[in-house]
Amino acid sequence: MYKYIMSLFRQISRVNRLQLLSGCMRSISSSSEPLLDLSVDGQGIAVLTLQRPPVNSLNLELLQQISQSFDDLAAQNCKGMVVTSSLPTVFSAGLDIKELYKPDIKRLNLFWSNFHNVALKFFTSEFPTATAINGHTPAGAYALAMLSEYRVTAKGNFTIGFNDTALGIVPSTWIIELMRHTMNSRRAELAATASTMFSPSDALKEGLVDDIADDKAEAIEKCKQFIKKFNNIPKWTHSETLRKTRSIPLETLKKFLAENPNQMTESVMKKDTQDSLGVYIEMMNQRKRQKTT
Amino acid sequence: MYKYIMSLFRQISRVNRLQLLSGCMRSISSSSEPLLDLSVDGQGIAVLTLQRPPVNSLNLELLQQISQSFDDLAAQNCKGMVVTSSLPTVFSAGLDIKELYKPDIKRLNLFWSNFHNVALKFFTSEFPTATAINGHTPAGAYALAMLSEYRVTAKGNFTIGFNDTALGIVPSTWIIELMRHTMNSRRAELAATASTMFSPSDALKEGLVDDIADDKAEAIEKCKQFIKKFNNIPKWTHSETLRKTRSIPLETLKKFLAENPNQMTESVMKKDTQDSLGVYIEMMNQRKRQKTT
Amino acid sequence: MYKYIMSLFRQISRVNRLQLLSGCMRSISSSSEPLLDLSVDGQGIAVLTLQRPPVNSLNLELLQQISQSFDDLAAQNCKGMVVTSSLPTVFSAGLDIKELYKPDIKRLNLFWSNFHNVALKFFTSEFPTATAINGHTPAGAYALAMLSEYRVTAKGNFTIGFNDTALGIVPSTWIIELMRHTMNSRRAELAATASTMFSPSDALKEGLVDDIADDKAEAIEKCKQFIKKFNNIPKWTHSETLRKTRSIPLETLKKFLAENPNQMTESVMKKDTQDSLGVYIEMMNQRKRQKTT
Repeated sequence: MYKYIMSLFRQISRVNRLQLLSGCMRSISSSSEPLLDLSVDGQGIAVLTLQRPPVNSLNLELLQQISQSFDDLAAQNCKGMVVTSSLPTVFSAGLDIKELYKPDIKRLNLFWSNFHNVALKFFTSEFPTATAINGHTPAGAYALAMLSEYRVTAKGNFTIGFNDTALGIVPSTWIIELMRHTMNSRRAELAATASTMFSPSDALKEGLVDDIADDKAEAIEKCKQFIKKFNNIPKWTHSETLRKTRSIPLETLKKFLAENPNQMTESVMKKDTQDSLGVYIEMMNQRKRQKTT
Repeated sequence: MYKYIMSLFRQISRVNRLQLLSGCMRSISSSSEPLLDLSVDGQGIAVLTLQRPPVNSLNLELLQQISQSFDDLAAQNCKGMVVTSSLPTVFSAGLDIKELYKPDIKRLNLFWSNFHNVALKFFTSEFPTATAINGHTPAGAYALAMLSEYRVTAKGNFTIGFNDTALGIVPSTWIIELMRHTMNSRRAELAATASTMFSPSDALKEGLVDDIADDKAEAIEKCKQFIKKFNNIPKWTHSETLRKTRSIPLETLKKFLAENPNQMTESVMKKDTQDSLGVYIEMMNQRKRQKTT
Repeated sequence: MYKYIMSLFRQISRVNRLQLLSGCMRSISSSSEPLLDLSVDGQGIAVLTLQRPPVNSLNLELLQQISQSFDDLAAQNCKGMVVTSSLPTVFSAGLDIKELYKPDIKRLNLFWSNFHNVALKFFTSEFPTATAINGHTPAGAYALAMLSEYRVTAKGNFTIGFNDTALGIVPSTWIIELMRHTMNSRRAELAATASTMFSPSDALKEGLVDDIADDKAEAIEKCKQFIKKFNNIPKWTHSETLRKTRSIPLETLKKFLAENPNQMTESVMKKDTQDSLGVYIEMMNQRKRQKTT
């Protein structure tokens, strides 16, 4: 905890320190160990850095902290938020498979409701959001990136995409609609069905990301430049217009939750899906053992 | 008025003169001063030239005359219509802000119903329509251009785009859907939220226009070439197919009007929007004064 | 019939012969003369070759045999299906106009129900499908190609597109939605209203096809490579995800059929459409006579 606070202090500008401490910091530290770092620069733009080694898997607690960050930044009248990762080669591995495999049902329901809550907060955010991708970004991690308004990837030897079908998982309809919105509809079909993963330059060409940068620092800077475009646009005008251009994925998500808020739990608990996840986890464990030997 | 009729006589082909005079001319002159020029060439293709200096703002009367032109041209069994501007550097400044700021409510309701009426006439036109852009085309002016089926821009030192959010105005859902239809969905989001204005060549690259020409004359000629593509296609087949490919923005507009035909009035009368418009008008007035000094 | 069986024997791999004979072959031969050739390679990928000279027009019987092929291949647990043509310069001329002009109404209803049945089988196929285009592909033939998941065209002096309006026919809403899904929405509008036909290289540029090959053999091979991408993806996961990415055209088709399963018959029986078809058929007959003289 001490280390986290020190790192935060080094990163945030002097002017925002007290504000941050009385705002978001308190809430994070009161709930559990911080799995992310939140700092606000002198111009009021926040950087949310995922820091849950080894691969920033999105578990219940991390999702809760992302959700809380939206509230804290809104309370601070923040100008915008850039999401990135503290890890050198991974942005995030996506949803934490341990939450999905042989789960406690009550916790699994809570996990999904927090994931959907984070999605709704991105869709209806009162400040602009962007993602600075600095490493591997598969499945749920790319869904998180799509939820923000703008994506800049660093160059590097990693891949970006939405590969749920390779794990035997059928993507939620609202995520499909978000892909159709982000990429060309036809190319979204190819990418989603075949679980295609793209290099940073191909991701740019196919529209998965909006810009490419030499490194993480430049990617964050480009995200901040994007956010500054809204300096002279009233906040409400921006968020209402964004909500309207994204009405299809947003309304699909709302309808999905209204029909049955726990349908993702039911879907994941299917025998076939549990079996697929079991095979995948076993494969991962074998790799680890091989590396250790 | 005399000048207008003379210019019309010079422009229209001999063969269409009497027809025009007994058709559209009468109706325009009977309502009020002509704010547009309508001529039909020897092949039955009309050119509608906006001429309301200094910047072709779309006020109530101009919208009424555009609407009337559709009826007149349909009665003449016209082959198609090209919209352009008589001004050297401006296609149109968009909706006349004077109609929106501290308005007479009854006139404002009439203004919006005429704007929506023009939109419906483009969506359901029985002849193909195209726009030859020859100067600045922001906000409502670009909405007008999107309503036509084909857009050719002249080269030049001006910009094209939909910048409502910069004025504190949230675009109507049906205009958002029309942007999503015209551009890539994702790029439409970026352009609409950030009020991005594009140079002619960038507008071509992003899909805001379909072709680029050396000057206004060539832009009009390219629009006419587009219209001639439909020479051998039955009119009803063309208009029905167009209506189907544009079903999303069209149905969104119909639903919008069915819900509450005066919701644009209510939206514009919000204090925040009136304040934004006031600031904008004051800014414009200051610029004028600076130029005069 | 003998010739067909011999050609089939030459084409299919040894290992699949008995399986095929007891599966799809029986059903085809029991209904009527085979209008297509169906072979399965050693890796379980089928090639369905349209062979109804002179131009592979889709008549009732050919549609029935395509539909039956889906059932036969599903029963064989087939890996995927590539559709192509036995003719050197034509993939298919599209729907057989003789089925539409002065038809027996009962047969016309059956014709449309089989066409829609084939569409539904492509939309909900449990194995991936692809089309190797090796010649002219207008109207209904391109609709068939769009229904498959992936399109590769050979190079050549032929055109590809959806030109129904040129025949005076308004495309069905679900086909418009399928075009909007396959191409950019805006470009689909231009292509559908103006009945634009594209060269193979333009078809690639506009997104009507996904890849281009030197010849038919390479086009088939590229289709097979596409199908192999799904080797490690559970079948149900693939087909469910495909169904979700294509929900708009699929749901539009379902709604269309629920409203009135015979509305295509009613549409085609309109006097204007019958007249257009009559003119077209007369034109075709004149061309034939000119060639004969």
